Amino acid sequence: MPQVTAHGIERDSAEFARVVGFSDAIFAIAMTLLVLEIGVSGLPEDSGGISDMAEALKDALPQIVSFAVSFYVIGRYWLAHHWFFSRLERIDRRTLSLNLVYLAFIAFLPFPTGLIGDYEENPIAFVVFALSMAAVSLMELVVYRHALHAGLLRSGVPAGIWKWARLASGFPVAVFIVSIPIGFLNTTAAILSWFVLSPIGFYINKRMPPEVLAYFSRY
Amino acid sequence: MPQVTAHGIERDSAEFARVVGFSDAIFAIAMTLLVLEIGVSGLPEDSGGISDMAEALKDALPQIVSFAVSFYVIGRYWLAHHWFFSRLERIDRRTLSLNLVYLAFIAFLPFPTGLIGDYEENPIAFVVFALSMAAVSLMELVVYRHALHAGLLRSGVPAGIWKWARLASGFPVAVFIVSIPIGFLNTTAAILSWFVLSPIGFYINKRMPPEVLAYFSRY
Amino acid sequence: MPQVTAHGIERDSAEFARVVGFSDAIFAIAMTLLVLEIGVSGLPEDSGGISDMAEALKDALPQIVSFAVSFYVIGRYWLAHHWFFSRLERIDRRTLSLNLVYLAFIAFLPFPTGLIGDYEENPIAFVVFALSMAAVSLMELVVYRHALHAGLLRSGVPAGIWKWARLASGFPVAVFIVSIPIGFLNTTAAILSWFVLSPIGFYINKRMPPEVLAYFSRY
Amino acid sequence: MPQVTAHGIERDSAEFARVVGFSDAIFAIAMTLLVLEIGVSGLPEDSGGISDMAEALKDALPQIVSFAVSFYVIGRYWLAHHWFFSRLERIDRRTLSLNLVYLAFIAFLPFPTGLIGDYEENPIAFVVFALSMAAVSLMELVVYRHALHAGLLRSGVPAGIWKWARLASGFPVAVFIVSIPIGFLNTTAAILSWFVLSPIGFYINKRMPPEVLAYFSRY
Repeated sequence: MPQVTAHGIERDSAEFARVVGFSDAIFAIAMTLLVLEIGVSGLPEDSGGISDMAEALKDALPQIVSFAVSFYVIGRYWLAHHWFFSRLERIDRRTLSLNLVYLAFIAFLPFPTGLIGDYEENPIAFVVFALSMAAVSLMELVVYRHALHAGLLRSGVPAGIWKWARLASGFPVAVFIVSIPIGFLNTTAAILSWFVLSPIGFYINKRMPPEVLAYFSRY
Repeated sequence: MPQVTAHGIERDSAEFARVVGFSDAIFAIAMTLLVLEIGVSGLPEDSGGISDMAEALKDALPQIVSFAVSFYVIGRYWLAHHWFFSRLERIDRRTLSLNLVYLAFIAFLPFPTGLIGDYEENPIAFVVFALSMAAVSLMELVVYRHALHAGLLRSGVPAGIWKWARLASGFPVAVFIVSIPIGFLNTTAAILSWFVLSPIGFYINKRMPPEVLAYFSRY
Repeated sequence: MPQVTAHGIERDSAEFARVVGFSDAIFAIAMTLLVLEIGVSGLPEDSGGISDMAEALKDALPQIVSFAVSFYVIGRYWLAHHWFFSRLERIDRRTLSLNLVYLAFIAFLPFPTGLIGDYEENPIAFVVFALSMAAVSLMELVVYRHALHAGLLRSGVPAGIWKWARLASGFPVAVFIVSIPIGFLNTTAAILSWFVLSPIGFYINKRMPPEVLAYFSRY
Repeated sequence: MPQVTAHGIERDSAEFARVVGFSDAIFAIAMTLLVLEIGVSGLPEDSGGISDMAEALKDALPQIVSFAVSFYVIGRYWLAHHWFFSRLERIDRRTLSLNLVYLAFIAFLPFPTGLIGDYEENPIAFVVFALSMAAVSLMELVVYRHALHAGLLRSGVPAGIWKWARLASGFPVAVFIVSIPIGFLNTTAAILSWFVLSPIGFYINKRMPPEVLAYFSRY
């Protein structure tokens, strides 16, 4: 029966499942709270006017876009977290603490999302947004690094994995940092730059040795 | 032991359970956040007046109705999601992504719910509400289609299932779209039209071949 | 392997667990959202004054009390839900629907809680609060009744169980209804009446035949 | 098959898992709701000004700090809860009730967190914050005590465990209480005193007999 020992929390124990379920709750709440940042304002109460509402929705558009962008980005972090935990053989105390720090950054994201939704043309709002995202990616890397070095991964880890994990997870950090000066010129262009730079990620994947790629895409 | 392989996440693995639990958290939060859109306003603080409060509650009635309608509709989507996942043999990477897009639309629903609750006579508010619902139904169809074509369903899928799934899940899309012009005349009538059109859904079910009906009602 | 059949969702299947997990998420969110209704107001921003804050907290006291009362009441509903699902052998489609209606009333509770917290002396606010609670207790009874009559309970159900379940679960409905006229005189007295009437519940338990009591207290 | 008996809810039963999952949902929501207390104000809508935003963020800094401090403290409570439940053999009815009271204090924490974030220099705000934290630690101790005395712990409990559990869990209560008079001089110093006093906790751990320490650090 899998359980909690001095070596850590084994995969398939109730305690392992609890860590995963708790993390998912944080992810789900952060992703759903984002919608509370969307709102229409400046409308007379019980307004029935078509043009008034169209105007108000146009003003709410940046908030809807920032909801969509954040849901997309946090969703990708969730997929990575999901994949990462499926590779773990067990968790130790340090993984628990690092995972909590990682989740703190995830739980913080509704704030910069609301900020960029309300002040979509403000470069400082964009900097807070980009730095928050970069911080999540960086913490992700810290958690991966610990798991690899503490031998928590399931068997069959290919050699050279850390080099490629660092490249694949470090790449978003670089993208977010690079987008900051663009944000001082134009915040929309800065967000678009994230999507424009995405193909480089595919290029990184393409250059991976087959066994590393197979390990990363184990589903 | 069920697990994550190159072919996807097998049913009964911890990872399959995680996807389901994460989806449920998004559903539950979206359904419960709806209540935050209900509020009384225009009342003097600490008012003890009976008629003042009765008046304020009357003004809050459209918000309470839109809470109830949304809880009902999202509840039906949850039932469909629950049923659908009980039919899956495994999930692949694409199902994960499509499911996240589907959940983004679910997480978005508190916004149109609040909008129609605050501006219950505004046709544009109703259009946003109806289009959001149609988008969820459409994404549902996209997820079903992928699962069927990628062979992710458990054995015993009857022939002709896709024709009927398309009909059963596409029907709400049609209802929501059809209600939009009605919304420009009267928004209450438009919401009522959803319930008036429901019997057509029962008629569709009645015409299904027995083996398809049996498959759909496997509980 | 327990699963979903034409007879319903068997206990110990992944689908049974999903219904329970989804219900718990609704409970947990409703109970935690209650805290958002607490707030201090009328304070100058960044106020450092001791007496100002003491005054503001005194004004927030009814909100803190209504948070505590609601958390207590919803917590008791959760305990009952927990106990009830531990007695089920399987769930059918109707249980799913009735459970969703029950959860809609649970998800609605933050609204009357906020109302009574803000307008603690308003009899109408109290009526909404008491009726909402009575509605939850009533739906609880409807779900129990269905499970009993559809034969969904685990073996060993004692004769006469329904008579006593009706008494035990119907009692809170009576208490909430009885407290409504008291609320028109004094809302604090009305809430206190709930706790004053509690011992009658203990008296009901005491008169139960031993096998019924044993069944109810199976943990 | 583990189940619910007259002696309580056994570890590895679906009901035991439900209690844990429900607790985690409360923890996760309380920790994530904290972010809603952060906000910028006093900014003209759609402001693009760099210095305006920098100013507004500076004003939001105490809220960000109180988010971080609360996330850290509640995170530590979650770790303790996680550890504690991994040591339980079964739960009885009283554990369920005490756990609910404990969770009520956890769910309450976003209120004092918001208070100290908005009125970071107000000693009364700090007192509410410190007392809330002390209340959680105290309830933690009450739950531990009950589990120990009711014999709910898994085998291998070392003698003298209660003395050390009381010391380890009672220590934060003392820290929070001690910080209150400091809060009347300076609230920032009072929060810092929590971290300054932390090493005493390490010193307590160091003096534990090896078998007690081993039991506490079983992962």
